[in-house]
Amino acid sequence: MTVTIDAAATAAKFREEIRAELASLSEPLSLVGILTAERGPSATYAKYAQKASEEVGVRFQLRHAHRLEAEAVIRECNADAAVHGMMVYYPVFGTERDSYLRDTVDPAKDIEGLHSYWARSLYENRRYLDPDRSKKAILPCTPLAILKLIEAAGVFAPKGRPLEGRTVCVFNRSEVVGRPLASMLAHDGARVYSFDIDGPQLYTPSDKPEGVHEVSETPVDRAKALSQADIIVTGVPSQSFPLIRASEIREGCVCINVSTYKNFDPDIEGKAGAFAPRVGPMTVTMALRNALRLYQNTRG
Amino acid sequence: MTVTIDAAATAAKFREEIRAELASLSEPLSLVGILTAERGPSATYAKYAQKASEEVGVRFQLRHAHRLEAEAVIRECNADAAVHGMMVYYPVFGTERDSYLRDTVDPAKDIEGLHSYWARSLYENRRYLDPDRSKKAILPCTPLAILKLIEAAGVFAPKGRPLEGRTVCVFNRSEVVGRPLASMLAHDGARVYSFDIDGPQLYTPSDKPEGVHEVSETPVDRAKALSQADIIVTGVPSQSFPLIRASEIREGCVCINVSTYKNFDPDIEGKAGAFAPRVGPMTVTMALRNALRLYQNTRG
Repeated sequence: MTVTIDAAATAAKFREEIRAELASLSEPLSLVGILTAERGPSATYAKYAQKASEEVGVRFQLRHAHRLEAEAVIRECNADAAVHGMMVYYPVFGTERDSYLRDTVDPAKDIEGLHSYWARSLYENRRYLDPDRSKKAILPCTPLAILKLIEAAGVFAPKGRPLEGRTVCVFNRSEVVGRPLASMLAHDGARVYSFDIDGPQLYTPSDKPEGVHEVSETPVDRAKALSQADIIVTGVPSQSFPLIRASEIREGCVCINVSTYKNFDPDIEGKAGAFAPRVGPMTVTMALRNALRLYQNTRG
Repeated sequence: MTVTIDAAATAAKFREEIRAELASLSEPLSLVGILTAERGPSATYAKYAQKASEEVGVRFQLRHAHRLEAEAVIRECNADAAVHGMMVYYPVFGTERDSYLRDTVDPAKDIEGLHSYWARSLYENRRYLDPDRSKKAILPCTPLAILKLIEAAGVFAPKGRPLEGRTVCVFNRSEVVGRPLASMLAHDGARVYSFDIDGPQLYTPSDKPEGVHEVSETPVDRAKALSQADIIVTGVPSQSFPLIRASEIREGCVCINVSTYKNFDPDIEGKAGAFAPRVGPMTVTMALRNALRLYQNTRG
C-alpha cells in the first residue's frame, strides 16, 4: 500500500509551530510580495502566500509592479526597516536577468533563500552564520519543502546524517530546485543521481560528518538509477518526459512529484511506499519559517 | 562611401598603449584562462587570448578543467596572489549555473568585468571605486569593445557626454552584452532602443550629467527605431534574424556587427557611414586593459 504524503497537512503542522513562535515576538512579522504578472501561476502563488501568511499572523503586503520597476521595489524593501522579508514572484523577465534580480534582494530579507549568498552557504555545507551556531543559515524554500516531505515519509535515520546510506534520484538540476536539493541530500548522507538535459551527475556524500559532497559525471542511466533509488524526486516541467512507471522503481520507495506536471505514472500506486503528488503548500510554509529565522538572526 | 572599422587595427593601437603601461609595472602581469571545452569557439578564443596576452608582455597560463572542476579552479586563482586576473571561457554549463560561476570570480581579478558587482556599478553609473576618483570601475569587455569601436567611427562629441543627442539601436539584451551596452550608451547621453525577443525597450539618458538612465517599454518597432538610429549594434546569434538592409537605415549611420552571424545585408555598403563587421579582437584587448586597471587599483 502506498501512503499519500499530503503537503497541505504537513504544512499545517509547521504553520502551527510558526504561529506559536511568532506569538513570542515583540512585533508582528511584516512581509512584502512583489508581483509583476497580472495572472498565471505566479499570481496564484502570490494570493496563496498572502492567505498562508495571514493564517499564521504575519502581515503580508502584496505589491504589484511593472517588471521594469521590480528592481526599484526590491531596493525600497531592502532599505525599509519596517519590511522584515520579501518574496519575488518569478519569472519576472524569464531570462538570466532574473538571477540578477534574485541577487538584488538583501540576503537578510530573502525569505525564499534564493540569493547566491545562501546558495554558496548551502553548497559549502555551512549551516550556521556564527561560530556559536546560534544563527542558522537559510535554505531555499522549495528544496527545503521537499526535504521536509521526505522526512514526513519516515525515512530519516534517528541518529547521524538522516539520509546515510540512502540512494536518491532527482530529475531536475535547475539553480533554484534540483541543484541545491541534490547538494542538501548529499550533505545529509545520501548518494544522489541528478538527471537533467545535460546528462546525469552523481553527488557523493563526504566521508566526514560535516564535510562537503563531491560531484562527478556518471554513466549511470535512468533505468539503473531508478532501480537503486530509495527516494525519487521529479521536477520536470514537460509533457514529453516519459512518466516513471511501477516497473522502474523499487518496492517501497518514496516518490515526490515537485513539478506541476505529473511525472509519475498512476501505476506506482501500490508499489511505492509513499507518494507526495505535490509540494506547493509546503514551499510557502518554508518561506514563512525562513522569515521567522531571518528575523531571529537579525534581532535575536 | 562606407568606412570599414577594423577591430584588429583599433585593437592594435590599444595594445600599444597597454604594452607601454605594462612596462612601467614592477612585475609582469600574470593571468589565467580557464577552459572547459576541448574545441569550438571558446577554445579558439582562449588561444587568441593567449596570443594577445603574450604579444603585450602579459604572462598567460591556460588551464584546462572539466566543467565540474571550473569552480574549484576559480577559487584557487582567487586565493593565489601570483594570479592577477582570470578569464573563464563560457559557456561552461550553458545554463543559469554560468551566472553562479561568473560571481565566483573575485571582482578584483575579474578582467572580463562580468561579476554582478561590476554590473551593479555600471547600471548605477558609478564610474569610480573611491571618492578621489583615482580608481576606475571595470566595464564588461564586450560592451566596452563596442563602445570603443563607436568612438573609433568618429561620432563622439568633443565635450560633455560623448553620445549626447544620438539615437542608438541595439539588437540583443543579454546580461553580458546588450543590457550593459544599452546602459553604458544611455549613460553616455544616447537614447537607446533595445530589441530582444521579449519586446523593445527605451533607455532614456538622465537630465543630469552623471545621473542614471531610465528604462521603459516602448511601442516603437524595428522600422521606426532603425529609421532614427545614428548607430546600430547587432548581436543576434541566429540565421533567422532578417538582415538589416540599406532601405531601413539612415544615410551615414554607424553599424556594428557583434554576432559571429552576419546581421547586416551587404547592401548597407555605400549607405552606412561606417561599418564594423566584427568586434572580437577588441574584446580580448579590453580584457587586458581591464587587467591592467585592476592591477593598478589593487596595488596603486
